[in-house]
Amino acid sequence: MALEPLALDLPTVVERPVMPAGFRAATTTAGIKSSGRPDLGVLATTGRPASVAAAFTTNLVRAAPVMLSEAHLADSEPSGGGHWGHAAAVISTSGCANAATGPDGDADQLALAEALAGTLGVEPGLTLALSTGLIGTRLPVGRVQAALPELVGRLAASDEALAALAEQMCTTDSRPKWASSTLEMLDRDGWPRTVTISGIAKGVGMIHPRMATMLALLLTDARVDPGVLHGMLSPAVERAWNQLTVDGDTSTNDTVFLLASGAAGATSPTLASPAAAQLARGVMAVARSLARQQAADGEGATTLITCQVSGALDDDEARAVARAVVASSLVKAAIHGRDPNWGRIAAAAGNARRGDRPVTLSAERLAIGLAGTDVFRGRPLDFDAAAISRLMDAPEVLLRLDLGVGEGSGEAFGCDLSEQYVVENSAYST
Amino acid sequence: MALEPLALDLPTVVERPVMPAGFRAATTTAGIKSSGRPDLGVLATTGRPASVAAAFTTNLVRAAPVMLSEAHLADSEPSGGGHWGHAAAVISTSGCANAATGPDGDADQLALAEALAGTLGVEPGLTLALSTGLIGTRLPVGRVQAALPELVGRLAASDEALAALAEQMCTTDSRPKWASSTLEMLDRDGWPRTVTISGIAKGVGMIHPRMATMLALLLTDARVDPGVLHGMLSPAVERAWNQLTVDGDTSTNDTVFLLASGAAGATSPTLASPAAAQLARGVMAVARSLARQQAADGEGATTLITCQVSGALDDDEARAVARAVVASSLVKAAIHGRDPNWGRIAAAAGNARRGDRPVTLSAERLAIGLAGTDVFRGRPLDFDAAAISRLMDAPEVLLRLDLGVGEGSGEAFGCDLSEQYVVENSAYST
Repeated sequence: MALEPLALDLPTVVERPVMPAGFRAATTTAGIKSSGRPDLGVLATTGRPASVAAAFTTNLVRAAPVMLSEAHLADSEPSGGGHWGHAAAVISTSGCANAATGPDGDADQLALAEALAGTLGVEPGLTLALSTGLIGTRLPVGRVQAALPELVGRLAASDEALAALAEQMCTTDSRPKWASSTLEMLDRDGWPRTVTISGIAKGVGMIHPRMATMLALLLTDARVDPGVLHGMLSPAVERAWNQLTVDGDTSTNDTVFLLASGAAGATSPTLASPAAAQLARGVMAVARSLARQQAADGEGATTLITCQVSGALDDDEARAVARAVVASSLVKAAIHGRDPNWGRIAAAAGNARRGDRPVTLSAERLAIGLAGTDVFRGRPLDFDAAAISRLMDAPEVLLRLDLGVGEGSGEAFGCDLSEQYVVENSAYST
Repeated sequence: MALEPLALDLPTVVERPVMPAGFRAATTTAGIKSSGRPDLGVLATTGRPASVAAAFTTNLVRAAPVMLSEAHLADSEPSGGGHWGHAAAVISTSGCANAATGPDGDADQLALAEALAGTLGVEPGLTLALSTGLIGTRLPVGRVQAALPELVGRLAASDEALAALAEQMCTTDSRPKWASSTLEMLDRDGWPRTVTISGIAKGVGMIHPRMATMLALLLTDARVDPGVLHGMLSPAVERAWNQLTVDGDTSTNDTVFLLASGAAGATSPTLASPAAAQLARGVMAVARSLARQQAADGEGATTLITCQVSGALDDDEARAVARAVVASSLVKAAIHGRDPNWGRIAAAAGNARRGDRPVTLSAERLAIGLAGTDVFRGRPLDFDAAAISRLMDAPEVLLRLDLGVGEGSGEAFGCDLSEQYVVENSAYST
């Protein structure tokens, strides 16, 4: 019996930019990127401030936009400690990370928050910031300030505006990432309302587990209290972005925001209600779609690698093994060469750790499936290497492991390692 | 004041193969490697069995030679639990890892041990094994058994024989690795005896911290009890091989053996004696030289990267930060491009962890030196990027960090990431 793909209980997602009710956006070229492509964007609510949940990088070197956003969230909702709160707008800059820039960089980021707040007529503490690009360079504050009034004048509540924001975020991405899902929730009179959950994200280098890798902005027109919203975001971060690796590097700027406008008219679900669980599955599905798009567009990547693990001691161990496999340079290089070298998959799985502790795994109980064919079950199996190699020449390669020790399951997402990754990353700043 | 290289208190090492007294070796081509290069080697003592200390891979998928060697050491000296004991010979096979081969692979490895022991006239339990190559394929046991009698007949106590063994171990290595150091110890009458410590090793892919990465064989003609010998090997493994990374992958076969023949005539030092400390420094110096040679010869590498960290909370944290920096794909790619993109160094340092815990590090206290020039000290410094780029075009690039929080220091060794790494590793088994 061959190893089958994991069955996942998630709603349908379309890969389209759909602006949920209650939000508007606009972008422009302020002169941060030397390429002349759009590098400044603003997302704002159409009405009162949105509920916000956030996840930030665990890198000890934290960029100025990360520190500012966390501080503003903590100010807006002290009980959230910087993890949730309220916001009326997000400023997104690309081409400069504003990381490792010292006190000057902090002052630059605050100046942008004040300029945005002044233009919108809100408190600076109700603004958040996303930034990505080169570390150690300063933002051109004057140029961004000068561009804001015209930009804010063009804020639009359209799908096209959300698409433009997704494109503005990109740096070395070859394409923007977007995903959307809908569900029905009830309004206060018991009538059904369609609620939309949308997300945009940017990859595509310096991506690795240990949090909310990279930038992602999730929007919903559901009404949700900030603390409840954070309870929906955390498992999505854990199962989508913490399971995504491109190159093993965790950025100084990684941020995920989930904003809920409440504009769909549905009532606010209480924690642990069926409605909250349904919404949380929608958030999870959108997050998973974005993470997979990010992996597929990893720098230099030619194929998405999905590793699904079953039979682990628990779900955490399954996810740790899946991460170890998609993070292995040797596995990534073998898949780039469409080489069914499953020994590297076994070796990578054997390196899996949870913190300092090894996972429960032994070669005798291990089974490995590669692109739909079982190749190892405690000992090498006979297989047609040329046939598997042909199956691996696809936009997605599934690696399937069963540890044979328990009921835990999980997955992780990565990409192959190509010469092009090295080419792109050995000539970036100079 | 610029950051200076760390001062290390280690004896002089020459990069030459020097066979210590009491050992002999020979190699041949048994037909394991398809290239027709030497793939079978034997090291044996000239007299009674040597004391042995060992360090094995922490990968949960352990190759047959690792399990056999550990079991034999445990049998020869139950108090050592497999970490130390006695051995009369080591069989070295290259071209086949004999890993993930199931019970058949274990039987193959035992058959080779019995054949070697029979030919030498010793107990099978006094033999150890080293193997490297493709995972998941079987050893050609019959061909190896057939080659052993002629091979054992040629065992020679010469530097050339040790050099040949170093070459036989190699797979994708571009050159063999060897190092040697001498010191004086006293014999039982108080006269000085020259003691030699030598090492050979192979790299060069699937190399990463979390133990005794790869294969290394250290030999000394000092007389040392196995338990004391293990006390000398452990810190050398910790400071040399656990600080070495090529690609972040820890192999199924990683093994370091340290054998002491006692043939130099010096007396056995007691634990914690000045003589033991002097010998331990020699072991450390040889191990460090081998680890640096392995890093420099990493698959596709064009330069050795040494990262030295000072001002850490303790030595462990310094080593963790140094490892994180040399393991970063983005740092490695930047150095390949001779790009003084120090922001990636700051970001990599910020990702350092000891197990699940972050190290103590903040951007405000961090200082970074790149190829002899300080580039960051709490904030970006002005520097001549073109001049640093020229200095980086060298066989070794030194990255120097000071964390500014304590007295801990340490170093780690790696190499740049080149297109050639991907080329070599995307077409290996097929």
